[in-house]
Amino acid sequence: LFRHALLESVKAALSAPLSAPVPLYARIQRALRQLMLDGALPAAASLPAARRLAQSLGVSRDTVEAAYAALHAEGFIERRIGSGSFVSAQVKRLKTDKRRAQAATDAPRLSQRGQKLLASGGLQDVLLPRPFAAGVPETRLFPLPLWQRLQRQVLKEYPSRALQHSPPQGVEELRRAIAAYLNAERGAQATPEQILILTSSQQALNLCATLLLDAGERLLLEDPVYAGARKAFAAAALELVPIAVDEGGLQTAKLSAARALYLTPSHQYPSGATLTLERRLAAIDWARREQAWIIEDDYDSEFHYQGKPTPCVQGLDGGRRTVYIGTFSKSLFPGLRIGYLLLPPSLVAPMTAARSLQDGHSAALPQLTLARFIEGGHFAAHVRSMRGVYATRRDHLAQLLQSRLGDFLHASVPAGGLQMPCTLREGLDEQAVISAAKRIGIDLQGLSSLYAEDGRSGFLLGFAAHAPQEMDAAAARLAALLRRV
Amino acid sequence: LFRHALLESVKAALSAPLSAPVPLYARIQRALRQLMLDGALPAAASLPAARRLAQSLGVSRDTVEAAYAALHAEGFIERRIGSGSFVSAQVKRLKTDKRRAQAATDAPRLSQRGQKLLASGGLQDVLLPRPFAAGVPETRLFPLPLWQRLQRQVLKEYPSRALQHSPPQGVEELRRAIAAYLNAERGAQATPEQILILTSSQQALNLCATLLLDAGERLLLEDPVYAGARKAFAAAALELVPIAVDEGGLQTAKLSAARALYLTPSHQYPSGATLTLERRLAAIDWARREQAWIIEDDYDSEFHYQGKPTPCVQGLDGGRRTVYIGTFSKSLFPGLRIGYLLLPPSLVAPMTAARSLQDGHSAALPQLTLARFIEGGHFAAHVRSMRGVYATRRDHLAQLLQSRLGDFLHASVPAGGLQMPCTLREGLDEQAVISAAKRIGIDLQGLSSLYAEDGRSGFLLGFAAHAPQEMDAAAARLAALLRRV
Repeated sequence: LFRHALLESVKAALSAPLSAPVPLYARIQRALRQLMLDGALPAAASLPAARRLAQSLGVSRDTVEAAYAALHAEGFIERRIGSGSFVSAQVKRLKTDKRRAQAATDAPRLSQRGQKLLASGGLQDVLLPRPFAAGVPETRLFPLPLWQRLQRQVLKEYPSRALQHSPPQGVEELRRAIAAYLNAERGAQATPEQILILTSSQQALNLCATLLLDAGERLLLEDPVYAGARKAFAAAALELVPIAVDEGGLQTAKLSAARALYLTPSHQYPSGATLTLERRLAAIDWARREQAWIIEDDYDSEFHYQGKPTPCVQGLDGGRRTVYIGTFSKSLFPGLRIGYLLLPPSLVAPMTAARSLQDGHSAALPQLTLARFIEGGHFAAHVRSMRGVYATRRDHLAQLLQSRLGDFLHASVPAGGLQMPCTLREGLDEQAVISAAKRIGIDLQGLSSLYAEDGRSGFLLGFAAHAPQEMDAAAARLAALLRRV
Repeated sequence: LFRHALLESVKAALSAPLSAPVPLYARIQRALRQLMLDGALPAAASLPAARRLAQSLGVSRDTVEAAYAALHAEGFIERRIGSGSFVSAQVKRLKTDKRRAQAATDAPRLSQRGQKLLASGGLQDVLLPRPFAAGVPETRLFPLPLWQRLQRQVLKEYPSRALQHSPPQGVEELRRAIAAYLNAERGAQATPEQILILTSSQQALNLCATLLLDAGERLLLEDPVYAGARKAFAAAALELVPIAVDEGGLQTAKLSAARALYLTPSHQYPSGATLTLERRLAAIDWARREQAWIIEDDYDSEFHYQGKPTPCVQGLDGGRRTVYIGTFSKSLFPGLRIGYLLLPPSLVAPMTAARSLQDGHSAALPQLTLARFIEGGHFAAHVRSMRGVYATRRDHLAQLLQSRLGDFLHASVPAGGLQMPCTLREGLDEQAVISAAKRIGIDLQGLSSLYAEDGRSGFLLGFAAHAPQEMDAAAARLAALLRRV
């Protein structure tokens, strides 16, 4: 009854290459199961005795017995003492329409919102930074032994808190430490109750886009603008209205009716411009008049190299119409996955509920460790030390650009942040340079794609994650490349 | 010019209680700034000399000087040598309409989708488990020193990978380890390329709800059903169609036209029923016929106490119409924040893009540590050991319920999972018992709210996170309470 063709199918399945390891008994079990689901072994058909199948396949009898036992446990076969194994009456042939199955594979049936999301493009952050990758800090100078010591302390003192679920709003110790930091260093008006801990500023942007605006509603944003923000807003199906930026930041005279405004006031991304006080006040006036929200993304404000960083808009506004986004990805390390929102009191409950439905809560252990790191003064010390390192690297890159690349690139040296925008000499093709540079180990982030239209060609060069000698070597290679192009 | 009233405002601000610490100079700075923003100190007004203000406030001159310097850096004041400090021309009074501001505080201007989300209610997982909290594992027996050793190894070998950004789809080592586990232990058909690492099964549910269905489209789900799933689907504005469950799991004869079906086939939540093979095949047939998706939530399938756990629907389906959700929150610990999706190949790119826009990626360090934990055989060993512990606790609870609580509760002992459903004797009020129990340190999860309508009263009692003696003590207290009610 167990025909030769069936045996050959099983043998073929056993010799087929696998993309992931599966035990031998399980492969036999699966091959038999597939024959049943395909209808080749219909309900009530009898299976060969384990000993005989083992011989035919050239495997041990125990292996076949294990496969049969598994099929039995799954309900695929019945075993009657004395009369062997039969395909169970529960089994029926699964219908497969090859044409339909093929169509399903080629064009997944995504929702319309899913298609919109896919069209807006995903995000891919820089993994292992090569010069001149932008948006990433230097992690090789992070005080990892100290961090690990604090983590061990936390695990010892609070093993259950660290391993079990933690509150969706974030652990209180960390919310307290962040509020104190924001009040002292960023001129914010923050209480621990207004802080919502998230995994990233990307999550904050996503929550703002969804909870503050409906599909089709107007959001004003900077032009040029941070791509992660634009994509999050586009994915939420908002109407995006770009507002031009100059050396004083976003041109507030051009603000128009809208539900929200996206701002990077400390160091505008990518231009590096700082929003003037006059424009900050104008933006707040606009928001109060329009009953609109200001989404203030303060992504790398810790790193300001000339005087004190400007205090945040949230503080000037008294936090009434401003939603403030902060992150530790730039000031500590991206793998930490801790960002946060400082919210008007009325938004805390809705945002926390939304976050809990989106992904529960953030891990407690990094939160508790970070709280201790801040409270112990280590955060302030690390930021101070990195500010010195980054200032030196910024100056080094500025000097390199002038001395080695001045014929091709014109830099705007920013007062803060982790990257420097440069315009490319007329006649050179931004995309061609990016591709050619990639092949020689240099990562360039193009500027033109960050503009709504007619963006000028150029690059946003990261200097924070690259030591001076690494930038030297890369600049020499890039200069040679640009001379060839 | 600096009138007495203004001085009193500053003094009042300095003596006001603060919810978060702010340095003294910053408090003076803020008080002065507020006077400017309120129009009490208009543009061009002169400020008192630092020495004089210091005397009036009873603080050191340095403190006032620091406040003035900060106001100057912010652009609020101009300082002219010989003639003192003046409010800058950039400053203008911020309009405040008290009525509108108040209205804004009371009723936040949320989007309609935000309101929908808020109405569906947030999720709050159990924090520090007391008996009989459900849905949480025993973390006190987790091999933390071993885990910490593996984590130190990872940090030593890959410091940059662990601290920098990591791929949105998840680190390859972990995707490989999970695919191998699913193939060997869950009868899945998985390759590492089909795995998407997330922070939780909640995130997986959220992504499925948004990417597979549009607002208003029909999703079939089990009745009763896991609240976290129902809320995620409701928040995505889907039309939810409950399908009754019996001892064979979801009644597939009642399946109707829809875009997707939510299933917990291993141990139906909360009934504990295992979906029969016949119904598994019927569900797959339905999905292929309807070109619908099966969302298979295999949340605690590692813990099955009678024979081998049933293999997953994804394996029977060949992964064609099935999206499989897994999590390490139950098998290891919730604070790990690692769940995953096993996807049909055509859904990998869209889901990864959506995830990257939602919150970037998961932390690399726990992923790399977990990959090593699985590859070293420690995951299998831990699950095996906990399966024994949980089986004992399940039996202990079943026996306790019979001997101590049999007059009030009738238990259905499940073949697997971390909790046991019990119906409450007629005439007792579920909600009243839950509230009274909470006051004596006992957490009860009500059953009736998990039903679409006319849910029977009862509780879902967790047994996994509670030692036998802890359950003994709680059962005695609960019995006394029930006799009183």
